[in-house]
Amino acid sequence: MTGLDLKPMLKPRSVAIIGASRDPDKVGHVILQNYINAGYSGKIYVVNNKADEIMGIKAYRNIRDIKAGIDLAVIAIPAEFVPDALEDCGKAGVKTTIVVSGGFAEIGKNDLQERLVQVARKYNMPTLGPNCLGVMDPRSRIDTLFLPTYKLSRPSVGGVSFVSQSGAVGSTILDLISSEGFGLSKFISYGNAAHIDEIDVLDYLMHDDETKVVIMYIEGIRRGREFLEAAKRISRVKPVIVLKGGKTAVGMAAARSHTAALAGDAQAYEAVFRQAGFIIADDISELLYYAKIMESEVPPAGNRVAIITNGGGAGVLATDAVGMSGKLKLAELSKKTIGSLAKIMPSLVNVRNPLDVAGDADEKRYGSALSLLMQDGGVDMFLVIALFQTPGADSKLAARLVDLKQKMEKPLVVVSIGAEYTKMHRIIMESGGVPVYDSPVDAVKSLAALYSYYTLRKARSKSNV
Amino acid sequence: MTGLDLKPMLKPRSVAIIGASRDPDKVGHVILQNYINAGYSGKIYVVNNKADEIMGIKAYRNIRDIKAGIDLAVIAIPAEFVPDALEDCGKAGVKTTIVVSGGFAEIGKNDLQERLVQVARKYNMPTLGPNCLGVMDPRSRIDTLFLPTYKLSRPSVGGVSFVSQSGAVGSTILDLISSEGFGLSKFISYGNAAHIDEIDVLDYLMHDDETKVVIMYIEGIRRGREFLEAAKRISRVKPVIVLKGGKTAVGMAAARSHTAALAGDAQAYEAVFRQAGFIIADDISELLYYAKIMESEVPPAGNRVAIITNGGGAGVLATDAVGMSGKLKLAELSKKTIGSLAKIMPSLVNVRNPLDVAGDADEKRYGSALSLLMQDGGVDMFLVIALFQTPGADSKLAARLVDLKQKMEKPLVVVSIGAEYTKMHRIIMESGGVPVYDSPVDAVKSLAALYSYYTLRKARSKSNV
Repeated sequence: MTGLDLKPMLKPRSVAIIGASRDPDKVGHVILQNYINAGYSGKIYVVNNKADEIMGIKAYRNIRDIKAGIDLAVIAIPAEFVPDALEDCGKAGVKTTIVVSGGFAEIGKNDLQERLVQVARKYNMPTLGPNCLGVMDPRSRIDTLFLPTYKLSRPSVGGVSFVSQSGAVGSTILDLISSEGFGLSKFISYGNAAHIDEIDVLDYLMHDDETKVVIMYIEGIRRGREFLEAAKRISRVKPVIVLKGGKTAVGMAAARSHTAALAGDAQAYEAVFRQAGFIIADDISELLYYAKIMESEVPPAGNRVAIITNGGGAGVLATDAVGMSGKLKLAELSKKTIGSLAKIMPSLVNVRNPLDVAGDADEKRYGSALSLLMQDGGVDMFLVIALFQTPGADSKLAARLVDLKQKMEKPLVVVSIGAEYTKMHRIIMESGGVPVYDSPVDAVKSLAALYSYYTLRKARSKSNV
Repeated sequence: MTGLDLKPMLKPRSVAIIGASRDPDKVGHVILQNYINAGYSGKIYVVNNKADEIMGIKAYRNIRDIKAGIDLAVIAIPAEFVPDALEDCGKAGVKTTIVVSGGFAEIGKNDLQERLVQVARKYNMPTLGPNCLGVMDPRSRIDTLFLPTYKLSRPSVGGVSFVSQSGAVGSTILDLISSEGFGLSKFISYGNAAHIDEIDVLDYLMHDDETKVVIMYIEGIRRGREFLEAAKRISRVKPVIVLKGGKTAVGMAAARSHTAALAGDAQAYEAVFRQAGFIIADDISELLYYAKIMESEVPPAGNRVAIITNGGGAGVLATDAVGMSGKLKLAELSKKTIGSLAKIMPSLVNVRNPLDVAGDADEKRYGSALSLLMQDGGVDMFLVIALFQTPGADSKLAARLVDLKQKMEKPLVVVSIGAEYTKMHRIIMESGGVPVYDSPVDAVKSLAALYSYYTLRKARSKSNV
């Protein structure tokens, strides 16, 4: 491990909240409340320089009064008081700190931020922020977010870690993850990256066994060369998906006034991400699509896709998307597969790829078609379109697809488009480990990302680059 | 009106269902049930050659036995019997028919389809299909879809008409529209386009006052020159958004076996759509995004966008999207606007465009900022990012945005990203006529489509092309 050790921050046995407040409108109140709500089982200490007790918990005037080992101090007080509070943390032997307060370099107060960094370095005390949302780890029930749970649904436990420079983008994506079919390992919002930066975070997550996939929102990086090295290291063992804010001249100017990031030249960034083997997302939605497939899918053996659909037009759109992907192609079914399919499909079904099993297809017809196609060595991955508006599609179909997926050693994604009835079936499939998309284009893009990532990783592991 | 008259099909005073059945698994049963459920107030007749009564309604053995004026006959019987049933309709003086049955040109039975066309022509009886879902008109409560309402939520009444060659794409999009912030005028699924084709439909919708916007899913057109003329005619008076299936060689082959469409050369189609002034969508989601903005927004005076956000990163992403759109640009705020904003915004707020009103912004801060920006002549449209995870954003903010939007003569779209709490607020805003998007990229694409459509339309009306 080359970077700063973040374990005491993400798996703390004790947490002190500096600036905890009994005023429900204050950040320090919401953070304390969220710790209590999340069921954090470690020791919680409360620091407030004006109170003796907050929400039933004894309050200390200064963290140095606590006289106990503290793994993490969360600091939520006005910027001007932060360096002194941090100094107190250092003197008290606190292992790590998170400064959620804003009012530093992002509004031009570089001196104040520099004082913060000096204290963090002096005590060798990994410090996250300032101007950040902090961290969340659903396993250790750490949650320093100062956003109430009724506004921001918390994700379930899973294998995706999310690293965000921006607090707002971070919180909206966390909220979206809560309704997606995958769970969260860690959330780390690092804001101005004054002390702990993206390199430390990547190095930590690379070695974190709970993290299978990393998604990142990033506005700028400072240590370019070291970043590329860290990025290459992690890409060799787990997929990293990145969304860059500040890709245009106007966007870069906006990023500068947001996280004080030097957003730099967009093409240079893209080159770095590509060299690193990162998967590049162009929108928030793409971050999530790619995370979903990367978390649940095995590496494909090749790029040949078989499409099964109960809606002709959706099959045409998916086929177009394969044709336009530039990476995938339609699998050519073997003569044996075609012969066997012809025997079991109704006469109206035209046996080809895409295979339109017709609007009245039920779980039996899907099941027998997929079982045959699974054995065709010319098929590397499956795109199954299951439109639940049709007469034959119901929860038995959803369950059958989960069942087949679990028996399969090839990637399989499902496309199901629609409102309430469809959403219910998406939940059945996603909780069974099947990634479900609501557009053929997004599903194909995700399969292409899966194929590209593993192809590159394999090539690199051979050439040892 | 040059094409076939579709009014008796969409506003029928009487409907006969040929092939109505008491077997709940039969298409004819579901169609009849849906008519009853939808509350259709005209006269319903039932034709079944084996029954005297179906679901409490007297059944006729043959449509010719009815001896009453019939505006629309819906035919749901096996393909081989369709031409004779159509002949009976002609003899009975039926005004229009819909053939939902499949088993014609799409599986190579061109002769059977040709017979159908001959009968339709002989009686000058506009006939939709075969191999189609039929039509829906929530105003006249016409609903020939043979998909149960619990599986496919029906949209509310509105100004968007949707024309689909494919039944499955049609039904999934209808289902999606039911949960979007806009309503439906007409749904027309025309399948094999044997008699009524897309040209007849466009000409009808052009003159239909209930239709403000048309969205189309199309796999192929046959009468190219006439199509272009019809497309140009309608584009001059209302926006048409088109999604083409069969854009690649593999997709075209798939389309051929789906709706018997000669999907033709993709670039040729794109050229036709562009010449026609159509808005081109690349995915199902884009069809809906564009429909939403086109239905609710006024033409913009120019392409200068002001962005207001309570989340810095989301503002950066929106700014990037504007920079990459190639069509829009960031508005330069006037000195007067900047001076006035500086007076009323908190000191942490950096007065610029994008305007980050900060994470604690409430409806008052948004309201005062927007009120000032509305008066700036250098701003043509607004992109308001309202992240409801933040402490200051609640239903008062949603209501305030609706209120300001209604006072405004410039386009305004909102971006709100998140799960349940956010969705609740989307509903408040969308039911107040504010288009809401869940990604900055999609919102910017939609504003760009709005600007491009009206710019082209204005240029054409001047040059009289």
